[in-house]
Amino acid sequence: MRSRLVVSCPDQPGIVAAIAGFLFDSGANILSSAQHSGERFFLRMEFEHTVPLVGFDAVAARFGMNYSVTESKLPKRVAILVSREQHCLLDLLWRQREAELNAEIAAVISNHRDAEANVVSLDEPFFHVPNTRDIREEAEREMVRILEEARADLVVLARYMQILSGEFLARIGVPVINIHHSFLPAFAGADPYGRAHERGVKIIGATAHYVTEELDAGPIIEQDVERVTHADDVAALRRTGRDIERSVLARAVRWHLEDRVLVDGPRTVVF
Amino acid sequence: MRSRLVVSCPDQPGIVAAIAGFLFDSGANILSSAQHSGERFFLRMEFEHTVPLVGFDAVAARFGMNYSVTESKLPKRVAILVSREQHCLLDLLWRQREAELNAEIAAVISNHRDAEANVVSLDEPFFHVPNTRDIREEAEREMVRILEEARADLVVLARYMQILSGEFLARIGVPVINIHHSFLPAFAGADPYGRAHERGVKIIGATAHYVTEELDAGPIIEQDVERVTHADDVAALRRTGRDIERSVLARAVRWHLEDRVLVDGPRTVVF
Amino acid sequence: MRSRLVVSCPDQPGIVAAIAGFLFDSGANILSSAQHSGERFFLRMEFEHTVPLVGFDAVAARFGMNYSVTESKLPKRVAILVSREQHCLLDLLWRQREAELNAEIAAVISNHRDAEANVVSLDEPFFHVPNTRDIREEAEREMVRILEEARADLVVLARYMQILSGEFLARIGVPVINIHHSFLPAFAGADPYGRAHERGVKIIGATAHYVTEELDAGPIIEQDVERVTHADDVAALRRTGRDIERSVLARAVRWHLEDRVLVDGPRTVVF
Amino acid sequence: MRSRLVVSCPDQPGIVAAIAGFLFDSGANILSSAQHSGERFFLRMEFEHTVPLVGFDAVAARFGMNYSVTESKLPKRVAILVSREQHCLLDLLWRQREAELNAEIAAVISNHRDAEANVVSLDEPFFHVPNTRDIREEAEREMVRILEEARADLVVLARYMQILSGEFLARIGVPVINIHHSFLPAFAGADPYGRAHERGVKIIGATAHYVTEELDAGPIIEQDVERVTHADDVAALRRTGRDIERSVLARAVRWHLEDRVLVDGPRTVVF
Repeated sequence: MRSRLVVSCPDQPGIVAAIAGFLFDSGANILSSAQHSGERFFLRMEFEHTVPLVGFDAVAARFGMNYSVTESKLPKRVAILVSREQHCLLDLLWRQREAELNAEIAAVISNHRDAEANVVSLDEPFFHVPNTRDIREEAEREMVRILEEARADLVVLARYMQILSGEFLARIGVPVINIHHSFLPAFAGADPYGRAHERGVKIIGATAHYVTEELDAGPIIEQDVERVTHADDVAALRRTGRDIERSVLARAVRWHLEDRVLVDGPRTVVF
Repeated sequence: MRSRLVVSCPDQPGIVAAIAGFLFDSGANILSSAQHSGERFFLRMEFEHTVPLVGFDAVAARFGMNYSVTESKLPKRVAILVSREQHCLLDLLWRQREAELNAEIAAVISNHRDAEANVVSLDEPFFHVPNTRDIREEAEREMVRILEEARADLVVLARYMQILSGEFLARIGVPVINIHHSFLPAFAGADPYGRAHERGVKIIGATAHYVTEELDAGPIIEQDVERVTHADDVAALRRTGRDIERSVLARAVRWHLEDRVLVDGPRTVVF
Repeated sequence: MRSRLVVSCPDQPGIVAAIAGFLFDSGANILSSAQHSGERFFLRMEFEHTVPLVGFDAVAARFGMNYSVTESKLPKRVAILVSREQHCLLDLLWRQREAELNAEIAAVISNHRDAEANVVSLDEPFFHVPNTRDIREEAEREMVRILEEARADLVVLARYMQILSGEFLARIGVPVINIHHSFLPAFAGADPYGRAHERGVKIIGATAHYVTEELDAGPIIEQDVERVTHADDVAALRRTGRDIERSVLARAVRWHLEDRVLVDGPRTVVF
Repeated sequence: MRSRLVVSCPDQPGIVAAIAGFLFDSGANILSSAQHSGERFFLRMEFEHTVPLVGFDAVAARFGMNYSVTESKLPKRVAILVSREQHCLLDLLWRQREAELNAEIAAVISNHRDAEANVVSLDEPFFHVPNTRDIREEAEREMVRILEEARADLVVLARYMQILSGEFLARIGVPVINIHHSFLPAFAGADPYGRAHERGVKIIGATAHYVTEELDAGPIIEQDVERVTHADDVAALRRTGRDIERSVLARAVRWHLEDRVLVDGPRTVVF
């Protein structure tokens, strides 16, 4: 059996010795290990073992650890929210089918019907939940119901263009990853490509981040960029941007599914 | 003789035909040509000719052109302003000596003496002009005097950490290129590396732009970026950033010296 | 009506003047223009006009031009050959549906049946043509028949893993673009990712090129790369590589469809 | 006191536990740790301790380790060999002065006198050792003498254009890092920029690698690339290439100086 241990705790001497000693005594063989000491200590280990680990709670208590142990091959259940543009959605669905993402698609929810045929033809569950400012409360209630029923471990906003309330985020209680179509913190908010063109930047980008109540301000997981020129109009920026968006989002989701992303206050540690 | 023609004017049919026809009738052979139609029409041509061009004013008047004709091999006179950090300054001086930049160093001006020995050892003229908020007016008067005497065609702010007044920019009457140590418009203003670290970005950058009265808001000439991780502290961002800064600034200055950069309102066209 | 003129000819003075003059006299308005003087002179212009162009043959004859005039909005007919791996195929089909590629899918031909269901579900024509070294002659005869019947203007090898004979290339008489899964000329031939891992390179890439009789040696249209580390095994290189392959191939195909790629002996000019 | 432990050994369970346990028992606090299991197990740890480590030999013997413990702040002594082109040399010297490289310049050796004035003006020791195929044996003998006297820990070939014999490499007994001006394995050998232009590649690169007896075939430490176009002639490739060369070489040297590069047969592990 292959498992992953993810730990964060206050930094102090002896943590690695305690963890590695525990695993060795449990007959586990460490396959990979990464650690980081920032404001706290962070660690991710992958290891092979034949019997369940027993007694790590004592180690954890000694160092004040937050930790999780996950079986590596167990897929997480991912719900995807999408509006009209389907490039990120289809890219994620394609990667999931190709086994690039160790996930089950728990649900695809959209405030439009554009994506329905594509999702259904891939035999994935599609839910149409209209959402506008006026009916937000009702829409979010319905989405909470769907996400709970679908037992989603992760929600991905794959170009979902409605704002989600803090109450919604609190109620679903699982991480939410958003793809923002700019190189944050530049061009947070609406119409980033239009504003990038207006400003005359020579490089555009995209940012995948965990969603917090503050718009486009959550911990950044991954970013990437492409060069553009004066010859690129807004439509060209959008086209180039779509490619960046889908690959940045796919990497962020894959890393999350592999338990590589740890939140460090307003930032992330990516192992 | 090799020359460059740079044109901007309102777009309308017949411009290229008129220019190319004029050059052909003047016995000139076009070596390269680039054009762009944005809000206006922009063109840069490089051509070889044996006799001076006569009569282009008539073509220009017909289309309402702003234009310039420059002999390609004529170096521009560049003044460099610098504070404490010398990496951009030394890089520019090195490139000028290696003939990567077709320029004469008109003056190096600093509000500190750190760079003096290096500049003098390269036989370039160094001027120490202290500058703080309190003595800005006097400092700028002195710099205007030096720049005029040095007949500078271009001023480069190679990590010059004092703000220049709009009056100063107006009085010197030549373009000013600044290197800002962030990927604008993100982290305009002070301490961009500290703020980038605080925000947890995964990519940092630098931006070369023409200076306008509004801080860090002038037309962008060139930008570039490098990937960073959670393991990079602010000192690591600074070190990575220095490399980006010097190469971005060098490209922007070289392109300007080769008359490749045309200002299009708040943006640039770079041929 | 918007059209494109693409020209190559021996370099000499007066070409641009003659072309621009002809277009102006024909009432055409030049929208964009790019040119290059290498071993020959190359030019691409896009322009708007209301009546068909008449008489350019005289201009072309004067300068010994190869040229073509194409109506910009007319789609080219693209045939795609694929073996087992579908990421490049699906990416092209998706972009064609999203109107990123101005093309009609003339045919999808595969030596396997893996892609059939996906292609059929998108309502595109699928042809299964088994192909191995032993039956190459017969397979190529069948493919020639299909391509002719489908009136293909371009053939794209989207991870087609069989070698095509020089005779086949000659008989189909249209350009063939291949995606090779390495940064050519490194790792030409079989198993590039395995050999990249063996060599311990820190960056991998992909190359789109026109196919010539010599394997992986035709004119390069586009290349791109991604950084890898010692931690990436061959499977990780393949996964990273798939993303590079599909975006490099998509750019090369798009540029070809927009008449931006001119062959200059063993190289290309990409406007 | 801050030290680094670098280990390689056959992989087996218990290594990390043994090392971390030893360090904890010695009162050391681990600051950073990275490991990799390839064909062998590799590990680099940085830690703080107050008393010298005693008894690690027993741990090492138990697991068959090659290991080294180095005090982090101790500079290595670097000798730089250079021919005519000084951009890599000057860049390294500049970074050493700016404390980007924790090194002392043991010697600069050149088969030409071009760099002499620059090196002397920086107060670094310069040695002129003519070297051609005919006098190689004598030249190498002289260089061995200089390197021994200078107690060099590392030799850097900063665009040194003479071939070094296997005997020379064996006699100096310290690692040698070379910068090759291509994206290896493409364009190994002479004139890579000319051949890159001839082949029409769209991206050029540079490669820093440890030198082995086989030309341009040693373990790669770092590579980087830049995009080029049909408009770039060989001189433009060279200019772009110089920037890649100096930054790739600087990173490779810095990582080596920080004991981040471990040789894994024909490859490297870079922590």
